[in-house]
Amino acid sequence: MSTEKIPYKIYLDESEMPKSWYNLRADMKNKPAPLLNPQTLKPMTAAELSGVFCEDLVKQELDNDTAYFEIPEEIRDFYKMFRPSPLMRAYRLEKKLGTPAKIYYKFEGNNTSGSHKLNSAIAQAYYAKKQGLKGVTTETGAGQWGTALAMACSYFDLDCKVYMVKVSYEQKPFRREVMRTYGASVTPSPSMETEVGKKILAAHPGTTGSLGCAISEAVEKAVTSDGYRYVLGSVLNQVLLHQSIIGLETKTALDKYGVKPDIIIGCAGGGSNLGGLIAPFMGEKLRGEADYRIIAVEPASCPSLTRGVYAYDFCDTGMVCPLAKMYTLGSSFIPAPNHAGGLRYHGMSSVLSQLYDDGLMEAVSVPQTAVFEAAEEFARTEGILPAPESSHAIKAAIDEAILCRENNEEKTIVFGLTGTGYFDMTAYEKFHDGKMSDYVPTDEEIAENISKLPKVN
Amino acid sequence: MSTEKIPYKIYLDESEMPKSWYNLRADMKNKPAPLLNPQTLKPMTAAELSGVFCEDLVKQELDNDTAYFEIPEEIRDFYKMFRPSPLMRAYRLEKKLGTPAKIYYKFEGNNTSGSHKLNSAIAQAYYAKKQGLKGVTTETGAGQWGTALAMACSYFDLDCKVYMVKVSYEQKPFRREVMRTYGASVTPSPSMETEVGKKILAAHPGTTGSLGCAISEAVEKAVTSDGYRYVLGSVLNQVLLHQSIIGLETKTALDKYGVKPDIIIGCAGGGSNLGGLIAPFMGEKLRGEADYRIIAVEPASCPSLTRGVYAYDFCDTGMVCPLAKMYTLGSSFIPAPNHAGGLRYHGMSSVLSQLYDDGLMEAVSVPQTAVFEAAEEFARTEGILPAPESSHAIKAAIDEAILCRENNEEKTIVFGLTGTGYFDMTAYEKFHDGKMSDYVPTDEEIAENISKLPKVN
Repeated sequence: MSTEKIPYKIYLDESEMPKSWYNLRADMKNKPAPLLNPQTLKPMTAAELSGVFCEDLVKQELDNDTAYFEIPEEIRDFYKMFRPSPLMRAYRLEKKLGTPAKIYYKFEGNNTSGSHKLNSAIAQAYYAKKQGLKGVTTETGAGQWGTALAMACSYFDLDCKVYMVKVSYEQKPFRREVMRTYGASVTPSPSMETEVGKKILAAHPGTTGSLGCAISEAVEKAVTSDGYRYVLGSVLNQVLLHQSIIGLETKTALDKYGVKPDIIIGCAGGGSNLGGLIAPFMGEKLRGEADYRIIAVEPASCPSLTRGVYAYDFCDTGMVCPLAKMYTLGSSFIPAPNHAGGLRYHGMSSVLSQLYDDGLMEAVSVPQTAVFEAAEEFARTEGILPAPESSHAIKAAIDEAILCRENNEEKTIVFGLTGTGYFDMTAYEKFHDGKMSDYVPTDEEIAENISKLPKVN
Repeated sequence: MSTEKIPYKIYLDESEMPKSWYNLRADMKNKPAPLLNPQTLKPMTAAELSGVFCEDLVKQELDNDTAYFEIPEEIRDFYKMFRPSPLMRAYRLEKKLGTPAKIYYKFEGNNTSGSHKLNSAIAQAYYAKKQGLKGVTTETGAGQWGTALAMACSYFDLDCKVYMVKVSYEQKPFRREVMRTYGASVTPSPSMETEVGKKILAAHPGTTGSLGCAISEAVEKAVTSDGYRYVLGSVLNQVLLHQSIIGLETKTALDKYGVKPDIIIGCAGGGSNLGGLIAPFMGEKLRGEADYRIIAVEPASCPSLTRGVYAYDFCDTGMVCPLAKMYTLGSSFIPAPNHAGGLRYHGMSSVLSQLYDDGLMEAVSVPQTAVFEAAEEFARTEGILPAPESSHAIKAAIDEAILCRENNEEKTIVFGLTGTGYFDMTAYEKFHDGKMSDYVPTDEEIAENISKLPKVN
C-alpha cells in the first residue's frame, strides 16, 4: 500500500454508503444495563417506553442482540444530502506537528446542522412520521441537536418543539434563527411552559439551565401532549445505533486504502459521536478480530468518565426520565457557566460506560483553554473551524501525534471531527479576549452531587 | 445517457481538479475596457498598477490574450482542502416544484470561509507571499471575502488588514471572530485610521458604510504602508480568472455524465462568482461551439446591470482607485440600509459588463422578500442554508424551473450556490419577523448618482 495515493479527502460513492446500522451491543459480552422505571426500579418495558418514545425506536433501544438494522430507504435518501461524509487525511497538521504519525479525521460538519447529530435526527423523525405522530419534543444544548432535528422534522413535515438550555439560547441567538428557518419552535429552558420548569425556576431563580433541565421539560411536554413523543440526540442506545454510520463509513474508507488505525479518538458528552465512530472497530475488538486503542475525550469541567462513578442515575434534573446505569457526576451536576466547550451532560451512554468499565476503552479529560488552542491551530492548519466539542478530540489527537514524534512512532490516528464552530464564535471570542477559564469542579462538588444519586445503587 | 445514474452529489477526484485557470478574455472579440488612470485618463500601465497590486496579479489583470494560466502547485494543494467542490443534483427541489426541468447547483460553501471567495483569496495571498510582501489590505462587505482572505493569509503567514463595512461589522460580530481566529485585524469602515475614512465620516456622520468606502480605505492603507499591497475579492479581471475554476469543474462534472445545460444562472454583485461559473460555457459560446442562456441575477435594490449605465466610473467612494468601464449606478450609490441580501456593489466587472452589452448574457433583478422565500424553500428542501447572495440565483432558478413546468419543457438548469448563510441569521431573523422591506431605488435616486459619473464618458 502506498500512502502517496491517499488523497486529502476520501469520498466514498453514494453506492458505498452503508445500508444498515451496526448495533454494537450484539457483540458485547457484558450488555449495557437496562433502563429502570424510577418508581418500581424494574427494567422499563417496551410498553412503558412507548409512552415517551416512538415504537420502532423503543425496539431499537431494547434490542441487545440484532447486529444489523436496515436503514430505511427514505432515511438513506436524506443521508445522500451530506453522506457519505469525507474522511480527511490531515497532511498539513502532520507536517505542522513534525510527526511521523498519520492522522485522519472523519468530518461530520458538512451539513447545515453543522454536526453528526443529523444522522440520528432524521432516523428519529422518520419513525415518528411512520407512526403517524403530529410532532416531537426535544432539548438542545449547544444547539446542534435542535438544528438537526428541526431540519429532519421539516423534511417529514412534523412539528418540532425544542427546549434550549438558556445559556446557549442567549449566547447563540443565530441557532434559534436556523431552527426557525426550518420551522421549529424554540423555548429557553427552564421555562414556565412546564410544571418541572416552574419547579426548577422556583428552586433556582436565575439559573442558566442545563441539559438535564431541558430534557425534563421536553419529556413532560411530550407525555402531556396528544400525538407527540420525545426524542433525544445522545446517550440512548438507539442514537448510538444510528450514529454507527460514522464508524462504518470510516472503516470502509480506510479499508479501501488498506489503512488500519492504531488509535481512535472521539469527544464524549453523552456519547453519540464516540459510540458511532468506534462501533465497527470496537466490534472487531469485542470479537477478538483486531485491537485498537480507543480514547474518549471529555472536558475537565464535566468529567463523567474520569471522575464520575458507575451507577444508576437520573438522565434529567427533574427526575422524570427512567434511570440509566452510567458513569455520572450526579444528575444535579451543572458545569460552571464559564464552560464554553459543550459536552456538558452529567452522564455517559450506558453502552460506552459498560465498555469503559470493562477496560475496553480509555478516557482523558482536557482543560478548556488547551482545547481552544488546539482548535485554533487546527483551523489555521487544516482550514476547518471546528466546534468546541470536536476540538476536544483534536486536542487529544495532537497530544498523541506529538508523543509519536517524541517516540518516533509511525502510528495511525483517526479522530472524529463532529462539527463546525460557526455558531460558537462567542466562545472563540472569550478565548481571543483571554476571558476563558479552566475551572474544574472540586472533589467536594463532585462528591456532593454524587451523594444525591438515587437509592437503587 | 441515463439520468438514473446521476448521484445527488457529483464529486470529482482531486486528480480531476483543473490545473489551469481559464481566461475568458482571450476568447472575447470585444475586450473589456482597460482601467484608466483617474488623473491622466490614460490606460493604467503595469508600473502604475504595481503600486497597488502584486506584480503577478498585475500581469493577470492586463493580459487579454493568454487563454490559460497554470495554477501554481501551492495553490492547488490548498484547493484540495475543499476542492473539487460538489456539483449537486437538486432532485428534491425538482420534485417539490413538480418541474420536468433538471436542476444542478455548484456548491461552493463547503469550506470555512463559507463561499467561493477562497478560490481567489488563496491565489492573491500566494502571489503576495511570492513577492516577499509583509501583508495585504482589503475590504469586506458581508464578510465572506474577509474571512477567505484571513484564511489564505494565515496559510502563507501574511499579515491581513480588513476594512469591514460598518453595517456588516455590527450585524455580523461573529464574522469578525472568525477572521481573528485566522489572525486578521478587522476595522469597521469608514474609520479614523485613514484620511479618506476621516473625510467620509466628516461628510456623512453616522453612515453605515459601503463597499466603495471600505475599498478606498484599504487602498489608502496599502499604498501608504511599506510592504503591503491591496487585494480585492471581486470585479477585477484577475478575480474572474481565479474563479474560473468553478465553471471548469462544473463543466468537467457535467461532461462526465453527458449533460449539456440549457440555462446557467449566477448571482451578481461585483461578478466574481458569475464570471467564474460561466467562464468555460461563455468561452464555447464566444467560439461558436455551443449556445447557452446565461442569466445574471441582481438585487432589485442594487440593480447595476438592469438599471445602471455602461460607463467609466470610480471603483470606490473615495475616488482613489482607477476608473473602470462597467455597468454602474454611480460610485456614490449606497443601497438602502434595510437591504440585507448582499451584492451591494455599485458596479459590475468590466468583463461581464462587456458581455452583457454585447448581448451575450441576460440580467434580471429580484426583490428581497422573494429571495428569502426562495432561500427558505431551498433550505427546507435541499438541506443547505444558503447565503442571501446565493439565494438570488436560487430565486431565478426556481422561476425558470416553474416556467419549464408551465411550458412542459425538460430544460437543464445549472446555478451557482456560492455560499452558506450561517453568518447571515440577522437577515433571516428580519425575514422571519416580517421586518424585511422591498425598497428599490427610485429613478430619481439612480439618475442623481449617475449624474456624478466622472467626465471621461
